[in-house]
Amino acid sequence: MEKAPPEFDLIAKVWAPLTREAAGAFGLTDDVAQLPVSPLGPVVTCDQVIEGTHFLPTDGLDWVAKRLVRRNLSDLIAKGCKPIGAFLALAWPKERPQAQLAAFAEGLGQDLLELCGACPLLGGDTSSTTGPLVASLTLVGMPLAKSGEPILRRGARAGDLIFITGTIGDPFLGLGVRLGLMDGKGLQNAVQLALAPAPPPLVTAELIAAHANASIDVSDGLLADVGHVAAASGLHMVLELDRIPLSSEATAWLSQSQDPLASLLSLVTGGDDYQSVMCVASDNAETLVAQGEPLGVHFTQIGSCRAGEGVELRYQGRLVPIPRRRGWEFSDA
Amino acid sequence: MEKAPPEFDLIAKVWAPLTREAAGAFGLTDDVAQLPVSPLGPVVTCDQVIEGTHFLPTDGLDWVAKRLVRRNLSDLIAKGCKPIGAFLALAWPKERPQAQLAAFAEGLGQDLLELCGACPLLGGDTSSTTGPLVASLTLVGMPLAKSGEPILRRGARAGDLIFITGTIGDPFLGLGVRLGLMDGKGLQNAVQLALAPAPPPLVTAELIAAHANASIDVSDGLLADVGHVAAASGLHMVLELDRIPLSSEATAWLSQSQDPLASLLSLVTGGDDYQSVMCVASDNAETLVAQGEPLGVHFTQIGSCRAGEGVELRYQGRLVPIPRRRGWEFSDA
Repeated sequence: MEKAPPEFDLIAKVWAPLTREAAGAFGLTDDVAQLPVSPLGPVVTCDQVIEGTHFLPTDGLDWVAKRLVRRNLSDLIAKGCKPIGAFLALAWPKERPQAQLAAFAEGLGQDLLELCGACPLLGGDTSSTTGPLVASLTLVGMPLAKSGEPILRRGARAGDLIFITGTIGDPFLGLGVRLGLMDGKGLQNAVQLALAPAPPPLVTAELIAAHANASIDVSDGLLADVGHVAAASGLHMVLELDRIPLSSEATAWLSQSQDPLASLLSLVTGGDDYQSVMCVASDNAETLVAQGEPLGVHFTQIGSCRAGEGVELRYQGRLVPIPRRRGWEFSDA
Repeated sequence: MEKAPPEFDLIAKVWAPLTREAAGAFGLTDDVAQLPVSPLGPVVTCDQVIEGTHFLPTDGLDWVAKRLVRRNLSDLIAKGCKPIGAFLALAWPKERPQAQLAAFAEGLGQDLLELCGACPLLGGDTSSTTGPLVASLTLVGMPLAKSGEPILRRGARAGDLIFITGTIGDPFLGLGVRLGLMDGKGLQNAVQLALAPAPPPLVTAELIAAHANASIDVSDGLLADVGHVAAASGLHMVLELDRIPLSSEATAWLSQSQDPLASLLSLVTGGDDYQSVMCVASDNAETLVAQGEPLGVHFTQIGSCRAGEGVELRYQGRLVPIPRRRGWEFSDA
């Protein structure tokens, strides 16, 4: 009933090129796809983007698709896994023109190719909706750790050092500008990143698989996500706010703030950074950083783990109360 | 940003019980799930249900969830695979009460338990939407064929006999009643099946894996789906309308028709039956039927395959023109 003849055209013209001729896709002409074998079984993550909740109705759909890919990819990278297959469920508003579907597919294809190591699209479902656009992506990954297992939130040990990739806070600042809550001067790159935050390079997954005891992507906000790892690992974690890596735009924004601590706290609670934060035994820390540099992956030590529970924030050597605010959302607009 | 604190409650109370303590779910407390190993790699199907497109806003959400499970399960069964893990992406309308979410989860859990062999929910994502409800399910399956491969649309051979499970047409009749296009007298069961059509029992997957050369679930309509198999296998297929198995309700409805052929054609083009239709070497046919009976799976021979292309319909020994109408849809209402 749902598969009117145009769907066959859609599959052949729009989606089939994204399979990159993977054998298990069966050319998107069957009802299932078969995944490659992985030693202990593949891992799966599944996240969606919803018009009005995760993006604005006027956003370019190439960037909406990229946000969708990156939301899932950041999970796999943080878990030390590389993507091996993607499945798309798309609820497409009847009134949106077909040209926008082409833009969505192009953004999806570009990120699957360039950020996901040519991960093939293996299947899915496109149906029409009378409501807003909803797209969900199931991204299947292969664990790269020798154990064959993903690097979980649990597994950190007392004495581990906490490292983070890239920089934190730009998507938060960019979203504030997009929602009209902040001045956009000097935040051009942040505004772009708010459309589709950039996860670390795919090779980061190999380094995490080789060296991390526990890991998570920064999606709820750095403070909240480190809290998840602390809770799952049964440890106390100390974060040093002075060490949080910031982009030049965020640094300039912070330097103009009348309350630098409050501003810094907003960056570590903003969320949607898609960077990886991980706990690494101190013996492995030097190797992690050294192996990352030639590959273009910059790891910054931002804290440490010890016995106990909860997260402790420190700034200029002082203990800082945990903030209650968790950053702004679309509903603030 | 999307994970406000209530989501943790939702996960723990509503979704976690559906994992059935599968190790790879990590208690739904991490960002990925790990699937069991399967010989040649697991298979995946991904389909959605959308309010206003696949179900009515007033439908009970337990049945909406069952429709979602069955839409995916029917794909796996027809491919000779058993479900091993499910991932749910749910766009939940802000104004729907939480009690409805509990009903949705209950329907989902019931079908995963009873129809899918206690298949665990391994992950997913729930976010709110300002629009209609959209739910997409990714169902991962283990191929049961000795080859480790799914039974595809391609693979039928000239001389194969065409078999179908269960009965055809009830969900189509029930939908007609629900849309107010038909009198519902004597079609109580059909109306129920229109909410969530029933696939054949899970054990059917084993019999298909053991005996079928090609197979598909009946979702577009029996005629269209046999057409897909004919096209993928490069064969001509003959369907004998007199042999199509019908429920007692559909038989009674047909007996009152002034144009039985037209009525029969509407049943084989209606779609959403979720039964399996397959091509079996004539040497295997007797075994298939005999093995099915004690397991409660009834296979009916409805046609055969020969060299050529396209589908041919026969009724009372005569050739019948292929109808153009493909059954009614929600948009008919």
